[in-house]
Amino acid sequence: MNAPEVFGKYRPAIDRELAEVLAERELPLYDMLRYHLGWVDREGNARASPSGKALRPTLCLLACEAVSGEFEMALPAAAAVELVHNYSLIHDDIQDDDRERRHAPTVWSLWGKPQAINAGTAMRMLASLALLRLNEHSVPLQKQLRGQQLIDESTLKLIEGQYLDIDFENRFDITVDNYLDMIFRKTGALIACSLEIGALVGTKDERTIAGFREIGRNLGLAFQIKDDILGIWGDEKKTGKPLAGDIRRKKKTLPIVYGLQDSHNEARQSLIKVYRNGMVEEDGIRTVLGILESLNVQARSRKLAETYRDRALKTLDELELSPQAKRDLEEVSRFLVERSF
Amino acid sequence: MNAPEVFGKYRPAIDRELAEVLAERELPLYDMLRYHLGWVDREGNARASPSGKALRPTLCLLACEAVSGEFEMALPAAAAVELVHNYSLIHDDIQDDDRERRHAPTVWSLWGKPQAINAGTAMRMLASLALLRLNEHSVPLQKQLRGQQLIDESTLKLIEGQYLDIDFENRFDITVDNYLDMIFRKTGALIACSLEIGALVGTKDERTIAGFREIGRNLGLAFQIKDDILGIWGDEKKTGKPLAGDIRRKKKTLPIVYGLQDSHNEARQSLIKVYRNGMVEEDGIRTVLGILESLNVQARSRKLAETYRDRALKTLDELELSPQAKRDLEEVSRFLVERSF
Repeated sequence: MNAPEVFGKYRPAIDRELAEVLAERELPLYDMLRYHLGWVDREGNARASPSGKALRPTLCLLACEAVSGEFEMALPAAAAVELVHNYSLIHDDIQDDDRERRHAPTVWSLWGKPQAINAGTAMRMLASLALLRLNEHSVPLQKQLRGQQLIDESTLKLIEGQYLDIDFENRFDITVDNYLDMIFRKTGALIACSLEIGALVGTKDERTIAGFREIGRNLGLAFQIKDDILGIWGDEKKTGKPLAGDIRRKKKTLPIVYGLQDSHNEARQSLIKVYRNGMVEEDGIRTVLGILESLNVQARSRKLAETYRDRALKTLDELELSPQAKRDLEEVSRFLVERSF
Repeated sequence: MNAPEVFGKYRPAIDRELAEVLAERELPLYDMLRYHLGWVDREGNARASPSGKALRPTLCLLACEAVSGEFEMALPAAAAVELVHNYSLIHDDIQDDDRERRHAPTVWSLWGKPQAINAGTAMRMLASLALLRLNEHSVPLQKQLRGQQLIDESTLKLIEGQYLDIDFENRFDITVDNYLDMIFRKTGALIACSLEIGALVGTKDERTIAGFREIGRNLGLAFQIKDDILGIWGDEKKTGKPLAGDIRRKKKTLPIVYGLQDSHNEARQSLIKVYRNGMVEEDGIRTVLGILESLNVQARSRKLAETYRDRALKTLDELELSPQAKRDLEEVSRFLVERSF
């Protein structure tokens, strides 16, 4: 399944907005940010095309257009959520010791961890400054402040999720509920914020705004569960991530949490043994994959992702939006669960 | 010289405001923040008294009271600048590999660097959320947004300064001008922001607001230069930092920059040799101290700090403020340069 057309529709406007936010930020510090965003190579030379799906800004603009018929006034918010997402990736890579992302060396692996910490936090500050540009679109002041509160609170939730994710690394008692609480913060909060802030900019109707938040929460969970599935069974060529990469990195993603929760005796002991070891070898990966298969984990994970997608679609159905807007949002919702990258 | 009385005057109100900002933040993530702020020990048990001078919030409240006769309405801004400062300390300690601060283990040395990164960024997010509480003091919306822009831009400047500081570590061609540009960002921006935002909350008069910004910029430089002097010649018992600590940590502070800029031949070579070595030994420290003495660096550094303090006092003198407010601000300005801790 290809990405829905709507991803292409907004992309040039999103890229222009981001370029303006970073304009006149001249110190070499900002080269790390431009590198991470895929705009320049490590020497600072311009690159052909930016990377990433730009999911969050697309959702933001889609929500604004769905409620108001226009998307331009939400561009500052779209840039802001994309920058929040990218700040979190820079810090995640440091925290997880990941040397590669999207087939390229991570910021810290080129500039060292101390400077990469600066790059991440600078990106997060630019997100807040990007949002202040709502003022140029004559968005009411009260809404601007509410937008600031929304991205600050959702960033805090994201950090809480990252805290729990790291905390889970050395624990074997994680339940599916613990896991859902963690991704609700780590992924759900910012995706909910993206839709909510887009709706907030475009309408005064509180029921609609709350509806988009609810859609975002469920889509965020569906999206992350699909990400977890791809992190183990995804096609390396399409995802840009190594086969069974999340097993190699010993992440406690949903499939592993199912495995730990539902396996018994020997199977559970071998699972724990693999995750307690230093490096995960090919043998260990085969063991884990075998146990997950015996527990039918891939299908159950997909089922759970579909449950959250369906909740999002149900809320969407109850909102009063144009048929075109509903179709676009439905298409994106389906894509998030059916994508192979 | 003791800290001026005004530091004690505001302290209870600052601590109450900070406590409210952190109230109901229950995850163990926030224990790291409370530990860093000196409220609890590493097990989470309450401690007697918070640590630190609370310089920035004090300046903020002083500015507000000086222009309006009241300080309460600036409390959200005071809490915000204190949280920005403390976020930067948590990340600095990670970046500099410092295991101790204020006679206690740093956050990362107890919880590890990945979680300490989360603690720092969470603290920075709470700063923005703290500032949103200006709304409860009926501060006009336009001023609230301007306040957000001020703390975001000054945090970005602070990160730029930290970027340069780390960049300077492996360079021996740093001039005094490079150094001043670095501390202008790393320390000056947030101190200027503290005074400016306090004035902004209290008055509409743009000339006065700009005056406080100018005072803050100069006081920030004076304060940092004094910090650098204490970092080499300060009394360990008073500063809580080891004797000649900045030489041991090989920081390129003002005295060292003077030394590198003005020494020649053998002296310059021995200076560089000490700074290129792995660990700095007692021998190396004696060498550096000898060279700095021969160049009269301590007196010249003090002179430069006094120059910036005098610029601050001159701007202060030109503002129309009550005699009491002027006296308080003068006393704090003098303290920043004459303090021994």
